Amino acid sequence: MLTLFHAPGACSLASCIALEETDAEFEIKTVSFADGEQHKADYLRLNPKGRVPALVVNDGTVAAHSKDATSSQGTKGVLTETPAILFYLAQQFPQANLAPLGDNFALAQMQSFNSFLCSTVHVAHAHKLRGARWANKESSYEDMRAKVPENMSTLFTMIEETYLGQPWVLGEQYSICDAYLYTIARWLEGDGVDITAFPRVNAHFKRMEDRPAVQRALRH
Amino acid sequence: MLTLFHAPGACSLASCIALEETDAEFEIKTVSFADGEQHKADYLRLNPKGRVPALVVNDGTVAAHSKDATSSQGTKGVLTETPAILFYLAQQFPQANLAPLGDNFALAQMQSFNSFLCSTVHVAHAHKLRGARWANKESSYEDMRAKVPENMSTLFTMIEETYLGQPWVLGEQYSICDAYLYTIARWLEGDGVDITAFPRVNAHFKRMEDRPAVQRALRH
Repeated sequence: MLTLFHAPGACSLASCIALEETDAEFEIKTVSFADGEQHKADYLRLNPKGRVPALVVNDGTVAAHSKDATSSQGTKGVLTETPAILFYLAQQFPQANLAPLGDNFALAQMQSFNSFLCSTVHVAHAHKLRGARWANKESSYEDMRAKVPENMSTLFTMIEETYLGQPWVLGEQYSICDAYLYTIARWLEGDGVDITAFPRVNAHFKRMEDRPAVQRALRH
Repeated sequence: MLTLFHAPGACSLASCIALEETDAEFEIKTVSFADGEQHKADYLRLNPKGRVPALVVNDGTVAAHSKDATSSQGTKGVLTETPAILFYLAQQFPQANLAPLGDNFALAQMQSFNSFLCSTVHVAHAHKLRGARWANKESSYEDMRAKVPENMSTLFTMIEETYLGQPWVLGEQYSICDAYLYTIARWLEGDGVDITAFPRVNAHFKRMEDRPAVQRALRH
């Protein structure tokens, strides 16, 4: 049994989509950002980072996060960080065919794309509303917010021209990269970027919205 | 044959260490940030992001980055992003025992740690010198720089108290996480953070410096 802690609109949507693509038994628990639930003691015990997603693996008692990661191998535990959760689901449910398992180089390219999304693209977007993570003055937050459309445009131009395959990110094979890219592309409109300026990204977006797993994930 | 594009002091040190831990045939090519080589056409053809590390897999002609990642499977290509390169090396050289291969959950925890380093810890550090990525005004850069010691302290407190195993990040097993943590911990002094405030991180740091592979990597 898997339990995903998810906040609608957040990057945890990618993990929802991946779960919906598998035949896993799972439940989704909503974390209300409006109520600040991610910063409350109950949630911080689960994920000290105070962010989503968090995936609780197995039912029963949730182990406290162990300092010795090897002690929770194969039993109970909590996984955080989107690329790690996505990769875990792809490995754990190979019949869903969500990653080029068995091909080290293709797998590394998959990881590279997801790593770029989490460390560069998501971070660029986060400067719109999360400026307080990195600065203290309102004038700095305004300055950061103002640069978000330009940065997201630059990064999506790179995705459009260099990293996005056809019809899926990795080419013929649908993968966890697609769920992650779609999740972040959903933020473009709010970031003041017109997705139709990127025809391949836009076509990918529509292709994703046709998938039943994506439609189910959006209802959580 | 593997060729790593590396800049001394940058996060590409983690990939140098991982290479030195294996019996791979490799060469290191230095990218001079002082000369802005990472932004010149030759390097951008290799890595359009203009960053290090970049790992060229196989010798001979370097394929242009393909829009269809699957077309370069198992042949020639360029890998970017530290977590992807590290994981590729761990998979490609299993005898070096750099990852808990074969244990999906432990592997996901490994990925989770590396993802946290790239998307949160490295990003916190980058606000010291790379503020221009996310804002336009000198006053914002100053504000960002001023917050770096606090942010790095908070994140290393979390690593010290929650995520760092004994004697290695994942517990008994040395892994690519250790190379990556050591690389980022080297930045603490320059970030105005005293590593001795984190006894377990500090002991890990010294343990890493005793490794011949780390000593060799630092000479590149």
